[in-house]
Amino acid sequence: MSDIISTTVDAETKGLISDLQALIRQPSVSARRVGLLECANLVAHIMLKSGINSELLYLDNDDYLKNDKKDVPPIVYGEVKSKANPNGRTILFYNHYDVQPEEPLELWNADPFSGKVEGNYIFGRGSSDDKGELITRIKAVEYFLKKTGDVPCNVKFIVEGEEEIGSSHIEKYLTKYRHKFTCDGVIWEFGYIDERDRPIISLGMKGLLYIELIAKGPSRDAHSSLAVLIENPAWQLVRALNTMRDHDGKILIKDWYKDVREFTPEELLLIANESFDEEKFKKEYGIDKFVNNLTGIEANKAFVGMPTCNIAGLLSGYTGEGAKTVLPSNAKVKIDFRLVPDMIPEKQFELVKNHLEENGFKDDIDIMLIHGEAAMRIPFNHSFVKQVEESAKETFGSAIISISSAGTGPMHSFAKVLCVPCVSIGSTYMYAKIHSPNEFARIDLLNKTTKCIGAILEKFAS
Amino acid sequence: MSDIISTTVDAETKGLISDLQALIRQPSVSARRVGLLECANLVAHIMLKSGINSELLYLDNDDYLKNDKKDVPPIVYGEVKSKANPNGRTILFYNHYDVQPEEPLELWNADPFSGKVEGNYIFGRGSSDDKGELITRIKAVEYFLKKTGDVPCNVKFIVEGEEEIGSSHIEKYLTKYRHKFTCDGVIWEFGYIDERDRPIISLGMKGLLYIELIAKGPSRDAHSSLAVLIENPAWQLVRALNTMRDHDGKILIKDWYKDVREFTPEELLLIANESFDEEKFKKEYGIDKFVNNLTGIEANKAFVGMPTCNIAGLLSGYTGEGAKTVLPSNAKVKIDFRLVPDMIPEKQFELVKNHLEENGFKDDIDIMLIHGEAAMRIPFNHSFVKQVEESAKETFGSAIISISSAGTGPMHSFAKVLCVPCVSIGSTYMYAKIHSPNEFARIDLLNKTTKCIGAILEKFAS
Repeated sequence: MSDIISTTVDAETKGLISDLQALIRQPSVSARRVGLLECANLVAHIMLKSGINSELLYLDNDDYLKNDKKDVPPIVYGEVKSKANPNGRTILFYNHYDVQPEEPLELWNADPFSGKVEGNYIFGRGSSDDKGELITRIKAVEYFLKKTGDVPCNVKFIVEGEEEIGSSHIEKYLTKYRHKFTCDGVIWEFGYIDERDRPIISLGMKGLLYIELIAKGPSRDAHSSLAVLIENPAWQLVRALNTMRDHDGKILIKDWYKDVREFTPEELLLIANESFDEEKFKKEYGIDKFVNNLTGIEANKAFVGMPTCNIAGLLSGYTGEGAKTVLPSNAKVKIDFRLVPDMIPEKQFELVKNHLEENGFKDDIDIMLIHGEAAMRIPFNHSFVKQVEESAKETFGSAIISISSAGTGPMHSFAKVLCVPCVSIGSTYMYAKIHSPNEFARIDLLNKTTKCIGAILEKFAS
Repeated sequence: MSDIISTTVDAETKGLISDLQALIRQPSVSARRVGLLECANLVAHIMLKSGINSELLYLDNDDYLKNDKKDVPPIVYGEVKSKANPNGRTILFYNHYDVQPEEPLELWNADPFSGKVEGNYIFGRGSSDDKGELITRIKAVEYFLKKTGDVPCNVKFIVEGEEEIGSSHIEKYLTKYRHKFTCDGVIWEFGYIDERDRPIISLGMKGLLYIELIAKGPSRDAHSSLAVLIENPAWQLVRALNTMRDHDGKILIKDWYKDVREFTPEELLLIANESFDEEKFKKEYGIDKFVNNLTGIEANKAFVGMPTCNIAGLLSGYTGEGAKTVLPSNAKVKIDFRLVPDMIPEKQFELVKNHLEENGFKDDIDIMLIHGEAAMRIPFNHSFVKQVEESAKETFGSAIISISSAGTGPMHSFAKVLCVPCVSIGSTYMYAKIHSPNEFARIDLLNKTTKCIGAILEKFAS
């Protein structure tokens, strides 16, 4: 194992923590467009401090500030040329500075933006996803520069501000700045570490179709005694939802699975070899069985390759304290469908629309496409995968290759526009409560991942 | 028509409006226990000012203020003895000083507690339900005292503070103070006026079973990518709800309709004679058809006698702006069932419980009884009904007898404890947006109803 920066990582833990705290303390909730520009500037500042040239890039040549807050948040672009190897290969780190909304607030044990440290844990929204991950990349580069005055290979950073709302402009950014972003491999924005401290190297991401349905009832909320005559839109919505998915998680929309790509025997072998502690997982989430009673390899396959239809939000009528007898004027549901290769979000959206129409809901339920993103997988035998795997094994002792993450990201856009392989590896403990109250990062894993990124930089140069 | 107080009503409109405004401006939301004692004191003060002896009655002999806010709000009791007829009959006015929550706030054109007057309309939460109704009763008594120095019959008032949350303590109050409350007839707290300015004299109320279901999922919100394995409680809830009611409004819970009392031929005749402007109603609520495509006498029958199962509130996951990919840890629904004679709320609650159990939801869905109240109807040929009907016809020109209101109130408790007939008549325009944003009262109807109450007082004495 290369140990060029390893001792520096251990010696400089305090600096990593305090920069991560600074990032957590700057809220940057993309869903509400809160603090995005401030956070982008902070990232650029931390990069500069680390010796990385940085700048904010905009989609339009306008200043973000001059415009309406609804405009697209900037990308933080960072770059360090290798002095020893300026015409060699270039690695690109893709990360994001935005975070998920912090709700439900009442379930946090501390301020979601406190960055509070307790022993091996640092708490806060974004501590793992994705500010913790980002800091491991920045620090690996910083320590190389500190220790050797150079980086082994050329390094680029793209840190976007809309990942948590579906990276809706990343493809446009990639397309506009494709010559600036040219690179030979992308280290993805996150990676899980399992309960046995093994990094999961993920070679793909699921796609996402995020929609909202609004069932329309009377023109205004009515007294619920009128339910004898006025149809309640919440009932309409319940009925519609009930036609979309069965008890076992199967999606009942016609042709939903038609474009799903079959696994090759080699992929199935890899899936079978992924170990997954079902009991620990169940305990962690307080459940006693999985959807459709899946176990063993079937559970692994679901993670990697099963499309889902998930109710992310449901709202109608009076939801406060006590009893209000109201017949609501509308009922809303937010649904996210995870997609797998080769499902096309726009096509799947049409299938949902047709489904509602064929089941008689066309007039009563409005459907809106909030976000669509295709899935992506890179071949497991790609040379870049091997380099990352070796680096991970050197740092963590062992590593797991996963055909695909269960989550979603714009990997498909990177492959399409920059024509590069993307590999996920990172510092996020499997049970780090990302997207949930009391999200945390483990400091030991932040350190190990920083070392691992250092090893990747060295191997990538060779 | 008796015109003893008629000219006074017309002359004193300003006083009625300003007292009603004072009541509206004192928020008194029982669901949140806001402003209840303040409002009770204000009602007692307005009564005193009008010449009615008033006091606050408590369920326990404790002072409401000394206790936790969760204690039972007081009843405002009012009384005036007839000097001419002290041993004659006593009429009791039952009203309430609490109001529905004002949400959704953003749909109000003005502050919900402003009491703003525009032409013939006075706006605000409680303007019709029930502060407007209450003021008509108080003013009728006040004008008699002003004009004649006496009231034609003995008068009592019970004004409670929990009607909008199901009058959960009224039966206890009635029982405790039954000798104080002794009377010969009760004028109910409200009554609708139809689109042709005819009061609807209602002889019954539906019952209510208000429950909450909570579907339980993982121990905390999870990232929605985990929906491949973790069952989403919102789906459980959707499935459970879907087993409870069909597309036509029929409740699918076993034995639900078993205790429903059949109408007599005479009652059916009365129902058939109730005129109902279906087109105006549909236009008012922006709908184009009724549940189960009911029309004509079937729509009338539904109003008077159909049990319902209504979703009053639905909440799960992320309901804010933008997209959050979350698998919620729970999903909640508030359901109100309207009951008719002779359904027993507790028995119907058991039927819901059994239904969930039989359909396999026992372990995953918690059920809570929030409120239960039985339905009530008095015989349409009761002498008290005749007196009210005559008074209404004298004041409004015509009146409609309705077997039952579609709404709910504790009429059953009055009949059981005080053994008196209750008749609904009031000042609330059918489309006055009660329980909704921009609730209003029509000043012309407040005046007419005050006159009508005056006529009832005279007839009741005879």
